[in-house]
Amino acid sequence: MTDYMPRPEHKFSFGLWTVGNRGRDPFGDAVRPTLRPVDAVKLLAEAGAWGVNLHDNDLIPIDATAAERDRIVREFREACEANSMTVPMATVNLFYDPVFRDGAFTANDPQVRAFAVQKTMRAMDIGVELGARIFVLWGGREGTETDACRRPDQAIKWLREALNYLCRYSIEQGYDYKFALEAKPNEPRADIYMPTTGAYLAFIETLDRPEMVGVNPEVAHEHMAGLNMMHSVAQAWEAGKLFHIDLNDQIPGRYDQDLRFGSANPKAAFWLVKFLEDVGYSGPRHFDAHAYRTEDYEGVKDFARGCMRTYLILKEKATRWNADSEIKSLLAEIGEISASGSAYNKDQPATLLARDFDRAALASKGLQYERLDQLTVDILLGVR
Amino acid sequence: MTDYMPRPEHKFSFGLWTVGNRGRDPFGDAVRPTLRPVDAVKLLAEAGAWGVNLHDNDLIPIDATAAERDRIVREFREACEANSMTVPMATVNLFYDPVFRDGAFTANDPQVRAFAVQKTMRAMDIGVELGARIFVLWGGREGTETDACRRPDQAIKWLREALNYLCRYSIEQGYDYKFALEAKPNEPRADIYMPTTGAYLAFIETLDRPEMVGVNPEVAHEHMAGLNMMHSVAQAWEAGKLFHIDLNDQIPGRYDQDLRFGSANPKAAFWLVKFLEDVGYSGPRHFDAHAYRTEDYEGVKDFARGCMRTYLILKEKATRWNADSEIKSLLAEIGEISASGSAYNKDQPATLLARDFDRAALASKGLQYERLDQLTVDILLGVR
Amino acid sequence: MTDYMPRPEHKFSFGLWTVGNRGRDPFGDAVRPTLRPVDAVKLLAEAGAWGVNLHDNDLIPIDATAAERDRIVREFREACEANSMTVPMATVNLFYDPVFRDGAFTANDPQVRAFAVQKTMRAMDIGVELGARIFVLWGGREGTETDACRRPDQAIKWLREALNYLCRYSIEQGYDYKFALEAKPNEPRADIYMPTTGAYLAFIETLDRPEMVGVNPEVAHEHMAGLNMMHSVAQAWEAGKLFHIDLNDQIPGRYDQDLRFGSANPKAAFWLVKFLEDVGYSGPRHFDAHAYRTEDYEGVKDFARGCMRTYLILKEKATRWNADSEIKSLLAEIGEISASGSAYNKDQPATLLARDFDRAALASKGLQYERLDQLTVDILLGVR
Amino acid sequence: MTDYMPRPEHKFSFGLWTVGNRGRDPFGDAVRPTLRPVDAVKLLAEAGAWGVNLHDNDLIPIDATAAERDRIVREFREACEANSMTVPMATVNLFYDPVFRDGAFTANDPQVRAFAVQKTMRAMDIGVELGARIFVLWGGREGTETDACRRPDQAIKWLREALNYLCRYSIEQGYDYKFALEAKPNEPRADIYMPTTGAYLAFIETLDRPEMVGVNPEVAHEHMAGLNMMHSVAQAWEAGKLFHIDLNDQIPGRYDQDLRFGSANPKAAFWLVKFLEDVGYSGPRHFDAHAYRTEDYEGVKDFARGCMRTYLILKEKATRWNADSEIKSLLAEIGEISASGSAYNKDQPATLLARDFDRAALASKGLQYERLDQLTVDILLGVR
Repeated sequence: MTDYMPRPEHKFSFGLWTVGNRGRDPFGDAVRPTLRPVDAVKLLAEAGAWGVNLHDNDLIPIDATAAERDRIVREFREACEANSMTVPMATVNLFYDPVFRDGAFTANDPQVRAFAVQKTMRAMDIGVELGARIFVLWGGREGTETDACRRPDQAIKWLREALNYLCRYSIEQGYDYKFALEAKPNEPRADIYMPTTGAYLAFIETLDRPEMVGVNPEVAHEHMAGLNMMHSVAQAWEAGKLFHIDLNDQIPGRYDQDLRFGSANPKAAFWLVKFLEDVGYSGPRHFDAHAYRTEDYEGVKDFARGCMRTYLILKEKATRWNADSEIKSLLAEIGEISASGSAYNKDQPATLLARDFDRAALASKGLQYERLDQLTVDILLGVR
Repeated sequence: MTDYMPRPEHKFSFGLWTVGNRGRDPFGDAVRPTLRPVDAVKLLAEAGAWGVNLHDNDLIPIDATAAERDRIVREFREACEANSMTVPMATVNLFYDPVFRDGAFTANDPQVRAFAVQKTMRAMDIGVELGARIFVLWGGREGTETDACRRPDQAIKWLREALNYLCRYSIEQGYDYKFALEAKPNEPRADIYMPTTGAYLAFIETLDRPEMVGVNPEVAHEHMAGLNMMHSVAQAWEAGKLFHIDLNDQIPGRYDQDLRFGSANPKAAFWLVKFLEDVGYSGPRHFDAHAYRTEDYEGVKDFARGCMRTYLILKEKATRWNADSEIKSLLAEIGEISASGSAYNKDQPATLLARDFDRAALASKGLQYERLDQLTVDILLGVR
Repeated sequence: MTDYMPRPEHKFSFGLWTVGNRGRDPFGDAVRPTLRPVDAVKLLAEAGAWGVNLHDNDLIPIDATAAERDRIVREFREACEANSMTVPMATVNLFYDPVFRDGAFTANDPQVRAFAVQKTMRAMDIGVELGARIFVLWGGREGTETDACRRPDQAIKWLREALNYLCRYSIEQGYDYKFALEAKPNEPRADIYMPTTGAYLAFIETLDRPEMVGVNPEVAHEHMAGLNMMHSVAQAWEAGKLFHIDLNDQIPGRYDQDLRFGSANPKAAFWLVKFLEDVGYSGPRHFDAHAYRTEDYEGVKDFARGCMRTYLILKEKATRWNADSEIKSLLAEIGEISASGSAYNKDQPATLLARDFDRAALASKGLQYERLDQLTVDILLGVR
Repeated sequence: MTDYMPRPEHKFSFGLWTVGNRGRDPFGDAVRPTLRPVDAVKLLAEAGAWGVNLHDNDLIPIDATAAERDRIVREFREACEANSMTVPMATVNLFYDPVFRDGAFTANDPQVRAFAVQKTMRAMDIGVELGARIFVLWGGREGTETDACRRPDQAIKWLREALNYLCRYSIEQGYDYKFALEAKPNEPRADIYMPTTGAYLAFIETLDRPEMVGVNPEVAHEHMAGLNMMHSVAQAWEAGKLFHIDLNDQIPGRYDQDLRFGSANPKAAFWLVKFLEDVGYSGPRHFDAHAYRTEDYEGVKDFARGCMRTYLILKEKATRWNADSEIKSLLAEIGEISASGSAYNKDQPATLLARDFDRAALASKGLQYERLDQLTVDILLGVR
């Protein structure tokens, strides 16, 4: 497997909005013509992707009639089938239309909250028709510019109400969805509620049906908060809540960059890929990124190919890392330490309190982490 | 109440390490002589504080004999009594000694993990002797410089093991502690596990006795991750987990500054105080900050007084905000909207799906949040 | 002067693009209808502003004919006159059109560079017709997503070429412009060349006519790099280069927020206003911000009024600070120290080397900066 | 050159304070025993370094007598000679002693300012005795926690006074020093004056002898401000001011991490090495970093070796990048565009104004930067 070519078993997926991104930004106009969804499917198939995801309005205009909607969904499903493309995940756009300027599930206006839930139910219907089993919710407008407008604990209650209702809808319809909640600290709101994957993991435990709901961590969003993405993913995984993942890249402390996976910091990307492969994550590897504005659609295809290629390169390096004899030896030395006794858990408190520890001796041993990290760099850079 | 003088009912507390901070930093030596704990108690009493908190080693040298330890605790308790100072919270230092350079509860070496738990149990004993009912845990060394050294899901398991053991110890000893976990994203480690209050809220739900464990959010630590502290506190509060709080100040995206409360961004401090007072938080208002290195101990007292004074000024402003007729009217207008029907929760899905919404109308109404925020600024700056 | 009402002598100006901002963002559509430039002038006049600034394309569509252009300029000038509104500054939009996706003055394509300069010359012509004497240049697209595309030293040479050409054009046309260069670290490019005011101050010294060129620091842009805006402004002022200023607000480490002046951090805003007033800065106080997306045009007016009101409140507080007797006394104490001898500059090296200093004594005196800062907070919050 | 072994011609240097760093941090004690300067020289020689740099007090205690000082310098020089180690740069510690808690050259107390200059002169003497020709100045304490304490324009004047005096001293003593100024945005002060390399480049132009003064950009310090280090270096180089460089690594938006070169973000390090090698920078490659606290002195040696090894790996990759035929072809395509005419500089304004540009055509061509960046990633990861 040294050709780094994407194959269906890698489960690489892209949103319609990623390759279809036209390059509009806060200071600039679109630079690429509209890419029809069916053409996006073809582009992705040519690039080697396995799956395509979508917001309701990536596919269906917000004002479409029921008949138009049905036709569009049918044609899209046919395009997917023709291109052997699966639709693993669906989501809903609760941020673009001005109606959501004060939030969607957490807007002060109950009409807006009700509309947001209705729109989500309809997006769930679409997802099911296309075969999606994962439903992502990114609450991009659930936040504030001034905390004068509402108490955040009220917002949390409204968010919970929406999630509980949607879980109930999924069950009643027999949809079998897993929901994956996607955190972000800010942008487009000055502050967004549920700013980190950790916040969502905590929130989930307060729902009526926590087992139906997990998270969708995104590299860029965790990096925006200056967090270690792999650590966030590990907490989600350890809690059984890694239902989906958004791969891209981002320099910390900036606007949402959505760069090609691994292109901003390949070492951070390496640890992330290694973790996903080591634990056997079996869900989609979804790339939520977009091409530079300097690109035409050939460049967009380069971008999509690059995301998958870099993932596969890093995956191979993870295998190499695990098999490296010097690394294994260094880890064994740590492991030997780790294995020497069961720490303290089997001790009664009195027994543990009676133990003597030689602090100075424990503190004096070099742990060789600089060596371990340099070996990692050597493998990453391909000189080992 | 316009003298802004601290009184016992305000429950203002400081750590021994805050007024006792000698100004050592990564690039500079200590600038103030050692302040004996009993003198710190006097200084705090003079400044008007109600409580004093401590790490085990703020009070008792790590190598003290049992006899020395008993004498020190006794003298300290007497000093507290003599100065009518309470000890609401105790904690343990698991970061200063070199033995913890690879972590404490999550160190690879099981001896270190066992020692960390033993040290914590002893610190719990001290706290109980001094009357503390809250036990804070800040895992400053629980993290990494390189993710080569251990898998973070393993670290989480070790962290859980420690918390479960300590809860058991508290119960078996009849200690009646509430644990409050304090998150921080980085520093002194390159990355710290459990980087945000949200991460800890999620972790707590995985413990054997979640009802015994809550959080201790700190302004500086949430700001370091660029988060809105008040939102983090609100999530903790809404989940019934706000067991303690660390008040100070911090410009986002920097080293841990631990500045005087309200001195970096008084508007963020205002929303925080307003939330705590509005919801009726009844725990200690603990200041975890320290004086500039330019100060002698008179300046340290100015610093301590300033923390409390600014809190009280902001508390009065919160009252004024709540009573402001124009603000009330603007909120009522929002509230009127909010009250117009019960959103959607009582609707059957079919009923909700059948509802018609006028998106354009919903999106067209000015929400007057700029006005609301400017009125807040006016109140904050004392011109209204 | 306690009504905080804006007056012409305050020189408050706004860009057409600020009150005319329709609320489009990376994730959302415009929320307000188009505001015609002449209506923006009326709105600003009603709000109490003195001046209005503009990019060429804020006023004139990029594809306008010469006749349309002349008519539009004429009508706009008449509207300004009718509303007693001045046009102190003009600028050029080198970022919105797709032609600039790779940069303007620094694009690899020489045709684009030439077009960018031509477009700037035409914008200078418009500015002159409207009476502007300051020409701002913000190079929003002068940067990269990947440093593979060009060497940054080449980009600097192209930037210099453009500035030198434009200075020459101004002179040859007898335009008497001062250019003010506006730095920004990132967004919309992953990295922007000349990321800080300091970088531009250095660059200016390498131009053919440095005396014609200064800077236009913006609060949000310096805060995005985590810098102290007032310090950046002070360096520009001290170098005689503060030709213009962009006032708004921004939490560090985020996307470009352009919030109402003083609304994110009123204390930082206070130091800035105090500096401008203390040194006697006599240029425009330009607000480069926009209203929240939740607002209609009444809210936009609230936003504009709030910017000016907060400036005037802070200006009054600066006066109060300077007149405060305790502050004066604390400063005098510092000043007394400062005045005690001429430091070292008049000493010969041998003399200075021979001097003895009592380090311990110099280090032991409390400098009372906590007190000084708390007095500042008291004044800021209006309780002193 | 594929063994990646350091050789004298690579000019790799380390500060005494880097390998001698004992791992003290704001929350923890030293973890390694003191390393005598002569032993540090041996360690560096064994690791393969060419040069060693020092602060005065890295070598000589601040309270040493003249006789002790002479003996220490002599012994150190002998150790350097015995180990074929050069001392290319010297610097002065103006931050550790409490006397500098309010600044050094910019402290309010004129005695402190005079002492700081005297101390620097003596450090210059030491440097000369050891053969140093570059004198670095990092003003770690030149800043504030509250801007109440002094006006920053006054601080700039004092900074200028110091630099002018020191230049004069260097000339009068016949020292032939080049000064290299090192910027940092914050830590250990809340804000440091001259926060970026750009700010110093501007400041230098205001000195009496600007030709004697350049900059010493540091990766970590520019990253702390979220800036692109290579861009900062390029501006310094283009201005003829890159007199020295501090190589290390740092995740943006955090405390000063001083990580092993290339270990936080190898792609950013690649662009930096490529720039230095492409332009023919011939000064020292100085590593200003330190080993993790988990390491003993064997680990410190691993750390030092890793810094140099990674530099050499990246240098080889830069050569490979420059020689890659597909990259050359893509660049030629860009270059072809670039060469097509001389942009506009030879045109008279009237001629340029008369030119017609086809915006749509110019904006439509895909620039293939995604492809170019992915080829860079492939080379960086060693799969091309």
